[in-house]
Amino acid sequence: MADAYVKSQLMTAGPTPLPPAVSQVMAEPIIYHRAPAFIEIYARCLEGLKRVFGTENDVLCFACSGSGAMESAVANLVRPSQPALVASCGKFGERWVELCEGFGAELVHHDAGWGSKVEPEDLDRLLGENPSVDVCFTTLSETSTGVVNDIAALAEVAGSHDVMLAVDAVSGLGAVPIPQDDWGVDVVVSGSQKALMCPPGLGFASASERALRYAAETPGRRFYFDWEKTVKGQRKDPPDTPFTPAVTLFRALDVALGLIEEEGLERVFERHRLLGRASRAAVRGLELDLFGPEDEDANVVTAIDLPDGIDGAAVPKRMREHYGITIAGGQNKLKGRIARIAHCGYFGAFDILTALSALEMTLRELGAEVELGAGVAAAQRVFVEAGEPAMAPAAGA
Amino acid sequence: MADAYVKSQLMTAGPTPLPPAVSQVMAEPIIYHRAPAFIEIYARCLEGLKRVFGTENDVLCFACSGSGAMESAVANLVRPSQPALVASCGKFGERWVELCEGFGAELVHHDAGWGSKVEPEDLDRLLGENPSVDVCFTTLSETSTGVVNDIAALAEVAGSHDVMLAVDAVSGLGAVPIPQDDWGVDVVVSGSQKALMCPPGLGFASASERALRYAAETPGRRFYFDWEKTVKGQRKDPPDTPFTPAVTLFRALDVALGLIEEEGLERVFERHRLLGRASRAAVRGLELDLFGPEDEDANVVTAIDLPDGIDGAAVPKRMREHYGITIAGGQNKLKGRIARIAHCGYFGAFDILTALSALEMTLRELGAEVELGAGVAAAQRVFVEAGEPAMAPAAGA
Repeated sequence: MADAYVKSQLMTAGPTPLPPAVSQVMAEPIIYHRAPAFIEIYARCLEGLKRVFGTENDVLCFACSGSGAMESAVANLVRPSQPALVASCGKFGERWVELCEGFGAELVHHDAGWGSKVEPEDLDRLLGENPSVDVCFTTLSETSTGVVNDIAALAEVAGSHDVMLAVDAVSGLGAVPIPQDDWGVDVVVSGSQKALMCPPGLGFASASERALRYAAETPGRRFYFDWEKTVKGQRKDPPDTPFTPAVTLFRALDVALGLIEEEGLERVFERHRLLGRASRAAVRGLELDLFGPEDEDANVVTAIDLPDGIDGAAVPKRMREHYGITIAGGQNKLKGRIARIAHCGYFGAFDILTALSALEMTLRELGAEVELGAGVAAAQRVFVEAGEPAMAPAAGA
Repeated sequence: MADAYVKSQLMTAGPTPLPPAVSQVMAEPIIYHRAPAFIEIYARCLEGLKRVFGTENDVLCFACSGSGAMESAVANLVRPSQPALVASCGKFGERWVELCEGFGAELVHHDAGWGSKVEPEDLDRLLGENPSVDVCFTTLSETSTGVVNDIAALAEVAGSHDVMLAVDAVSGLGAVPIPQDDWGVDVVVSGSQKALMCPPGLGFASASERALRYAAETPGRRFYFDWEKTVKGQRKDPPDTPFTPAVTLFRALDVALGLIEEEGLERVFERHRLLGRASRAAVRGLELDLFGPEDEDANVVTAIDLPDGIDGAAVPKRMREHYGITIAGGQNKLKGRIARIAHCGYFGAFDILTALSALEMTLRELGAEVELGAGVAAAQRVFVEAGEPAMAPAAGA
């Protein structure tokens, strides 16, 4: 066994590593969700979420995974046998397809292809061809490929057709900008376990007044994810929850949102930009290919096309077993084809350098012709050139 | 301020207090849900849950509150415009009503009354009158009133009509017996935050093969709570989850299930019986009335009918603010009428004596004619008579 390397490090895009202060607050004695101590934390989270979402909407909170938050959008907005448009470019975009089908929509599906972006002109054309579509579902950061869509442009197109846009920002929110109200996005859903630096188990949906009105008129089989019920609770003074909230996860969220405020949202985005730029430079330095387009907005996950001739599925396995570094490989049709370097949430420069080091050593051991240190050096150059860098997130410890 | 009393103690029936070892494990660095370290914990939880449910079924796990687990049963079993029977006796039984209506059932509702038990003969009559009912929903422990229904008898009645019984055991599971397979209960749902001694955020549904088959043939708008999808993941080797699981809550559950195994499930039930008996003795000792029937199986929550002439809503408020003891009062129509002494999960004899002490002092201060110490002494006598008692749960610290 390679004992020098067994210090385990989580480098995945969800769950993401947690700041120590976030982990530690969950070890506090649990509190009652109807007592003032929790209500104060809960109210602070509701306000802090609005700032991260860039919205005046109530950010509705559910005890669920990110997919549950997505389901809330579909359950409240999709009307049986009515058309709904999904513009996807990977596994999580296809989750909108599964959800819309599960909820009985007449589906219009635009598949931009895994590794491609959804093009605004394609959306424009499709909405022109399908004038009875009321809602379009798409993805901010497609975690399965690293692609980040241009939501500002897609929202403008949707707006020009008077169609509501619902965006899965599960991995993107808090990593790359999505100022909901400025961009006129009707619905943004997210989850706790990505750039919000919390454990999985909280889902969020921020819905515009227009979306809430549309939901209120949408019949359907829903209860737990019913927006109206949740809005009603959250708008009370003090705010309330229709069901027992995930108390420990709200405590974690409260601390994490405090760290984001401390670092400053713009600086958080700047850090993610730098980490993304360094990761892409490393791929070039290693003379490997990015999976998907070279894109300076793709700052959540960097997907690397693995060299032919090596066993791609062995890469994350060996990195974890031999070096203690857990990264994610490809999912579904990309299984064994890509490796993903995550940089969303509590990641700093040295996390990226560590992941790159382990990847280089692993690729070499598996027989790929990569130059040890070439990716690391390319990333280092980016960090050095950045001058006084926004390299490290606030620890809160 | 009464500084001698500000040591805060949680004495509610959910969230319930957590063993220190359960709280502490959540402060460990987070792990990746697709890596062996988590899969091992997850697999152990799935096996441990089966033992607590007394079943060979897969116990399906969801990131949600207990109501989400209830929704999973309704979403998978209720067919639009088909009859479904709800036999309720309080707030949580009425949640089945809301869910069945939300999912479009033709509802047959038997309301046994808040504070009463659902009588097997009433169920027998109703099922006779409604032969097209396929599923009946009811409650093990009705947290809002303290009533514990005789599920063995209700399951026998349902079985004689060839009707499936779905039981909300959110607060009852792990506090009072519900050996699912022995009693022939088709569906048992529960949550993490009651007698399972975990924070809120995990919901469970144990469904028989018959219920799973029926669900597979039930059309509907569901995705997140779809049983088939979840069963498929959990039956893989190693077991998998369709969505990102609530990693920290599974770690908590793993520790909590270990504590239950260590104490022994029968001994856990014996401890709850003793705590329930002591609580009821205290109510008599104080010359107050139980809310609901005197019942030696009602060992989850003891509801006390508050004396006339005092401001009932002030009781939990003053206990919390003045003495640091958080108990729950009445909900909905019982608001201000009852106080509830919880004893489900990580509760020992001295928790009950503490709650009773605070209640006595508070009632006296609010003007009720209760004798200080009379309830405490009555409970103490029960504990002393029990001899070597099963008074304290395993701490795991």
